[in-house]
Amino acid sequence: MISLPNVGPGRSVIAFDVGGTDIKSALIDERGEVRGFGRSATPVERLNPLTPGANGNLGAAPQIIAQLRELQLELTRAHPDVTPVAASIVVPGIVDSDRGVGVFASNLGWKDAPIRALAEQALGIPVAFHHDIHSASSAELKFGSARNVRNAVVVVLGTGIAGTVIIDGAPYLAGGFAGEIGHSPVADGPQCPCGGRGCLETIASGGAIARRYRDRVLASGDGRATPDRVRDILTLADAGDVDARAVWEEALDALALAFAQITAVIAPDAIVLAGGLSLAGDALVRPLRERLEARLSFHRRPEILTAQLGGDAGLIGAVLFARALAEANEAAANAAAGTPFSSDEA
Amino acid sequence: MISLPNVGPGRSVIAFDVGGTDIKSALIDERGEVRGFGRSATPVERLNPLTPGANGNLGAAPQIIAQLRELQLELTRAHPDVTPVAASIVVPGIVDSDRGVGVFASNLGWKDAPIRALAEQALGIPVAFHHDIHSASSAELKFGSARNVRNAVVVVLGTGIAGTVIIDGAPYLAGGFAGEIGHSPVADGPQCPCGGRGCLETIASGGAIARRYRDRVLASGDGRATPDRVRDILTLADAGDVDARAVWEEALDALALAFAQITAVIAPDAIVLAGGLSLAGDALVRPLRERLEARLSFHRRPEILTAQLGGDAGLIGAVLFARALAEANEAAANAAAGTPFSSDEA
Repeated sequence: MISLPNVGPGRSVIAFDVGGTDIKSALIDERGEVRGFGRSATPVERLNPLTPGANGNLGAAPQIIAQLRELQLELTRAHPDVTPVAASIVVPGIVDSDRGVGVFASNLGWKDAPIRALAEQALGIPVAFHHDIHSASSAELKFGSARNVRNAVVVVLGTGIAGTVIIDGAPYLAGGFAGEIGHSPVADGPQCPCGGRGCLETIASGGAIARRYRDRVLASGDGRATPDRVRDILTLADAGDVDARAVWEEALDALALAFAQITAVIAPDAIVLAGGLSLAGDALVRPLRERLEARLSFHRRPEILTAQLGGDAGLIGAVLFARALAEANEAAANAAAGTPFSSDEA
Repeated sequence: MISLPNVGPGRSVIAFDVGGTDIKSALIDERGEVRGFGRSATPVERLNPLTPGANGNLGAAPQIIAQLRELQLELTRAHPDVTPVAASIVVPGIVDSDRGVGVFASNLGWKDAPIRALAEQALGIPVAFHHDIHSASSAELKFGSARNVRNAVVVVLGTGIAGTVIIDGAPYLAGGFAGEIGHSPVADGPQCPCGGRGCLETIASGGAIARRYRDRVLASGDGRATPDRVRDILTLADAGDVDARAVWEEALDALALAFAQITAVIAPDAIVLAGGLSLAGDALVRPLRERLEARLSFHRRPEILTAQLGGDAGLIGAVLFARALAEANEAAANAAAGTPFSSDEA
């Protein structure tokens, strides 16, 4: 059940990966072992309907942070020998990790909300606050398929499409606005819920592939059942279903176009595919490589890799962020105390 | 005639901006003043036709470097009180400045040519070797409109389209392959001489605008004259010429699409427009801002700026690169001699 690797010796920390559906939590001890690992529903339904303005700009933040506090108490009560000295929270949306602010998250309802400050008050320990995709990408760079890569783009192909631009081994943030590959326009349509049109996500995400297949079958009027899972649509495509084939090829073409644009502008060493769609493996990677090749000329080819870590990559990255925060705070405290080489284990 | 700003006190250096048509040269003294500034034809016609394989992989490099040596002698003879301690050469194409290699330059005919080593042998002083667009962009960041910007994209709209990605105040190179915005695909056509199709350059460069206008007029069969200069085509568009209007709007749409893609992926603080087309000023900037706005939703808007430095930006950047090389060499020599704080002015 637990797919977290041992992150090695260091401080005890607690990590939370808060999604629109559930919250994953983990308590890590000083040996780097996972001592508590949990999953619970995200309390967004209490705000149902999550109207703009519910809780002001905080959205579901008060409910979520109260739940994180409960989880912290449960974990530390169950493991009294482990005392976490820092926590981290990773969330979807637009995140300004420098300021600790949740700029925007449609499914959590907040807008310019000071999540880090609220969480530090509730949890009583320092909190790192980051984007869940940056977190998963950092984990992939540390433990996964992109271990030796300096410059990369991680593209998470799930219900939507998100991404992280890695420059010189670290996420390039741009105030939380970088890496929005799913909302890069690649065509003149369709309209995207984000307000743009022709966003990559409207053609090539898992959600888009299922929706576009359903629409095509409905339009043809033959009334056959349409699966929601891309895996099943791919099976239909392989079996000769013309509509399934068409939406899959449109998705591949849109991805190859976006990757060619990224290659021309920032020439990454690798593009790492993550998320549910990446489980298609060679059925995704091989045609993508071919289509990207057909789009390029003198450009340097990025490697196309698939992520090695599973769905817990975001939580693993959160552990790394909390560990880094604990170390930075300790180094700062030691420097202030004039004991830069302290080996105090208190 | 000389539009070079005084770069301030430092070492005497010599700078060359080698283009497909001409070579600009400048000798800079220790006060930062331009003591010699020249322009001469690039000796590529001696290789006419510049067939692949002429001079092996060196193309016009031997002729060009011999000419740089002549220019060096002329400049130092004319100014015997100035002794340059480093030089720099900036060129078009794909440049690996870390290795000092000209990876590819179609109009200079070389391919994987060790330009820096050859030039250091001929000139007898250390040589910095960089891409001309990175050079011009660095000058724009130091002296031009992007002085306070950390993350930017400089887009040079000339006969073709080139660019530089600036991350944290410095060009982001990726082995010379980053910033090829002109060869980012934005459509399914037309075919680009680079081997790709639908490259931004085939729709939105000055060359493309002139060519596409000419093609439309020819196709309409009315035999009217078609200017080559974008300025004249813009005047026709303003006067109600439907074909001129159409090609200009297609160019604006393609630029806005490319800028929206760049905004989604790397969210620069600013996009700086340079090159001949940027002289259109508001006629370019205002519709570009509007079209980019129409493409974006939650994305952070980049400022759209025009470059302040003129056609000598590449040479100014070359002076900066040569100065930086002289300083780095001096620091290394002082460190080796155990005199890190030497103020020796020899």
